[in-house]
Amino acid sequence: MVRVLKICTQDQKGLIYKISDVIFKYHINIVKNDEFVGEGMFFFRAILEGDFKKEAFIQTLKVVLGQEALIELCEKRKKNIVVFATKESHCLGDLLIRHYSNELQADIKAVISNHDVLKGLVEKFNIAYHHISAQDLSREEQEKQVLECLKQYQFDYLILAKYMRILSPDFVEHFEGKIINIHHSFLPAFIGANPYKQAFERGVKIIGATAHFVNNNLDEGPIITQAVLSINHEYTWQDMQQAGRNIEKDVLSKALDLVFEDRIFIHNNKTIIF
Amino acid sequence: MVRVLKICTQDQKGLIYKISDVIFKYHINIVKNDEFVGEGMFFFRAILEGDFKKEAFIQTLKVVLGQEALIELCEKRKKNIVVFATKESHCLGDLLIRHYSNELQADIKAVISNHDVLKGLVEKFNIAYHHISAQDLSREEQEKQVLECLKQYQFDYLILAKYMRILSPDFVEHFEGKIINIHHSFLPAFIGANPYKQAFERGVKIIGATAHFVNNNLDEGPIITQAVLSINHEYTWQDMQQAGRNIEKDVLSKALDLVFEDRIFIHNNKTIIF
Amino acid sequence: MVRVLKICTQDQKGLIYKISDVIFKYHINIVKNDEFVGEGMFFFRAILEGDFKKEAFIQTLKVVLGQEALIELCEKRKKNIVVFATKESHCLGDLLIRHYSNELQADIKAVISNHDVLKGLVEKFNIAYHHISAQDLSREEQEKQVLECLKQYQFDYLILAKYMRILSPDFVEHFEGKIINIHHSFLPAFIGANPYKQAFERGVKIIGATAHFVNNNLDEGPIITQAVLSINHEYTWQDMQQAGRNIEKDVLSKALDLVFEDRIFIHNNKTIIF
Amino acid sequence: MVRVLKICTQDQKGLIYKISDVIFKYHINIVKNDEFVGEGMFFFRAILEGDFKKEAFIQTLKVVLGQEALIELCEKRKKNIVVFATKESHCLGDLLIRHYSNELQADIKAVISNHDVLKGLVEKFNIAYHHISAQDLSREEQEKQVLECLKQYQFDYLILAKYMRILSPDFVEHFEGKIINIHHSFLPAFIGANPYKQAFERGVKIIGATAHFVNNNLDEGPIITQAVLSINHEYTWQDMQQAGRNIEKDVLSKALDLVFEDRIFIHNNKTIIF
Repeated sequence: MVRVLKICTQDQKGLIYKISDVIFKYHINIVKNDEFVGEGMFFFRAILEGDFKKEAFIQTLKVVLGQEALIELCEKRKKNIVVFATKESHCLGDLLIRHYSNELQADIKAVISNHDVLKGLVEKFNIAYHHISAQDLSREEQEKQVLECLKQYQFDYLILAKYMRILSPDFVEHFEGKIINIHHSFLPAFIGANPYKQAFERGVKIIGATAHFVNNNLDEGPIITQAVLSINHEYTWQDMQQAGRNIEKDVLSKALDLVFEDRIFIHNNKTIIF
Repeated sequence: MVRVLKICTQDQKGLIYKISDVIFKYHINIVKNDEFVGEGMFFFRAILEGDFKKEAFIQTLKVVLGQEALIELCEKRKKNIVVFATKESHCLGDLLIRHYSNELQADIKAVISNHDVLKGLVEKFNIAYHHISAQDLSREEQEKQVLECLKQYQFDYLILAKYMRILSPDFVEHFEGKIINIHHSFLPAFIGANPYKQAFERGVKIIGATAHFVNNNLDEGPIITQAVLSINHEYTWQDMQQAGRNIEKDVLSKALDLVFEDRIFIHNNKTIIF
Repeated sequence: MVRVLKICTQDQKGLIYKISDVIFKYHINIVKNDEFVGEGMFFFRAILEGDFKKEAFIQTLKVVLGQEALIELCEKRKKNIVVFATKESHCLGDLLIRHYSNELQADIKAVISNHDVLKGLVEKFNIAYHHISAQDLSREEQEKQVLECLKQYQFDYLILAKYMRILSPDFVEHFEGKIINIHHSFLPAFIGANPYKQAFERGVKIIGATAHFVNNNLDEGPIITQAVLSINHEYTWQDMQQAGRNIEKDVLSKALDLVFEDRIFIHNNKTIIF
Repeated sequence: MVRVLKICTQDQKGLIYKISDVIFKYHINIVKNDEFVGEGMFFFRAILEGDFKKEAFIQTLKVVLGQEALIELCEKRKKNIVVFATKESHCLGDLLIRHYSNELQADIKAVISNHDVLKGLVEKFNIAYHHISAQDLSREEQEKQVLECLKQYQFDYLILAKYMRILSPDFVEHFEGKIINIHHSFLPAFIGANPYKQAFERGVKIIGATAHFVNNNLDEGPIITQAVLSINHEYTWQDMQQAGRNIEKDVLSKALDLVFEDRIFIHNNKTIIF
């Protein structure tokens, strides 16, 4: 049985020895381990192979490392996700194809959209599509319907695949560290609406995309991964938007691999990724 | 004889025909030409080969295109530059080596620095080094000395090769479109001081550098070229600074090639580059 | 009406003048033009706007440029394609999504595969799927069936979207300049089978993908576009294969945009791309 | 005191525990550690901080890990290098500037060249320049002189900074794992002479550079790092050569950082780099 162990605690001498001592005594094999020390904190991730009792193992680690150590032991399994989208199909379509081909390390339980444009595409793949319009509704009212809808699903993450609405602080806090967004600029450049228009106005020679966890400051959550693309004066902002689509979907896809493989620690609004 | 023709005017039908007609009638060969239409303007650049009278040729073009057309005819020659630096040697050193090896399409007439750290390096290459300290001086006083010093040189461009001082609006206006700076971030991200520290704080996964013309809004001049570098959580800001040096000098060097080959139009604070 | 003019002829003085003269006299507007001279040849492409008689216009150009000049005038329209695939879904799936979203500048008339694995996916999109097995058949016999099947379709290009069979010289000659392949290495590295295994064996730090026209020398046709990805010692060849999928589909997609917009000249087994 | 511990041995269960146990018992702090298991081998690198007896520590590790384990304990110090060059200055010049600015983690003890072109540049930096011509000499005769010349220097690595001669098998074996070369293509593409000409002939859209250890098969030694650059049909091979220079010097510089920080294991003609 393969599991991922994640530990985050104050740095101190001998931590690797102490942890590997426990692992050894439980007759567990370390397939791979990574460690990082930064800003006084110690981050450790190991892929473990072996049959052992989860609770006892974590308990022993707590004894050795102290109760304040954050210890997670994740079973290697497909995550469950709900995808939010609006009208654009490139990110959602990519997820659907990967899902269909068993390349996505997650099950798409449902798609929620504030429009019905993508219904036909999603239903081709026999996935539930919920159209929850925002028209004539306050943000709170619409989100209430979304929350209601989500109740029927068990999910690990909410994926914003070009969901063009800003989530309320309440909503975000409800799912802290569980919402992943793809933003169509290399953050922190061009925060907010219409980044390609902003990029055009500024005359940049590089555009990009950023996948990040969502927190309560718009486009300021912990960055997971970013990628860029060279452009030139011939690009209108519509050309940038078109060219940016490949980058957006690749960045989202890469970020989701990292998330679903339990590779990421969030600390001080930054990510440590093994 | 090889010359570069640059034309910028309001777009209208038949411009290429009209221009190529004049060129043909002057028995000039077009080695290469590029054209771009954007925001209602027409930009044209051609490399011309042939013996002809510059003034008459431009005059004919003016008759055909109208007096308001901007027409430049640049002889293919090495540009003359003065380099500004502070303490860091990577950009300056790169320029010196290229200059020595005849790879830089410019002659370095002098180096001006607000410190004396780089004097030894510059003088190895028999280039004049002017140490104009900013200590105990107002910006105006120091710049007055710089301007005085510059009087002895004929130069086409001032190159800020990691010159860590902000130039006054007066100074910048004096040399409009003639000052090129290398900024150590992918603008518009991390404007201002210590971009690498800012990048560290934000937790970005990509850092970069931007070469741009200097105007009176700090780090907001027309961008010439940009490049980026992937980083991860292991990078301190000092690591980023170190890693960024190669990008900085490459971007500056690439930008200078474009400038010195008369490839750039500046329009609406953006660059059109052929 | 928008059309693309492509001219390829021996270089000589005054060609741009002569061409733009004809265009001007036909009262045609040049939206954009590009030109390149290499190895003694002149390549010219212009996007033209205006109403004019195609045959007369080409005739006039022939008179001016000589009968040996290659002149093409392509109407701006969606191309028709047939896609060949085998078992892998990432490139095909990407084409299907783009097609569905109207982003692909082509209509997929049918998919032909030597396996039936992808049938379900293709039929979701109401596109004909032809399973033409190669089992127990000679290359000639199987290709005969493929050719027979193709007869019912009118198409401009055949797209090999991870079609894992080598086409016979006869087949290739039949569709010269009309077959586009995606190869999973940065050619000319790792020609032939299993490029990712080859890359693993060699211990490279960069892998890539190449889209190219197919000719009769395996993996040696004119290259359209290439892209790469950094890897490290942790990648098994299966990891490379997985990571390479995004690159493969992006490169194929970018190449198809260039092909479908009539931007490419093939000359001396190389491509000139405007 | 900071030292780098490198261990390479057959993989088995509990290695990390055993190693960290020894480290803990010697009261050594692990600043950072990395580990990799591949092809049945275990590779481990740790940065250690603490005062301890080198011999005793290694002896204890040997007892625990077995005598066949390869164990290296490198003091963190500047390496000593001799640079080989021919006529091109970009890589050598970059090394000289870095050396001068204290950015190169090595001391350049001397430069050896088969030409005298670079003598002036090297001597500006007060570094010994040995011109050992190859004219009218057999490979063996010239190398004999090179070896004789090298005798006066203590060095850790020989750096081929665009040394355009092939070293004999004897010479290479003499300095196994100690010679680093920069090759001007993304290997394994374009092995041998004139890679830019080969790249031009093939019509590739990407060129690159590769830094590698030298072994007895030309351009087939273990690859350290690679980088690439996009080009298009406008590039002559001379343009590629010019454009490639930045890539070449950056790749060499990055590779040398990795080498000088004792980050590299060589195994099965591949590199494992932490």
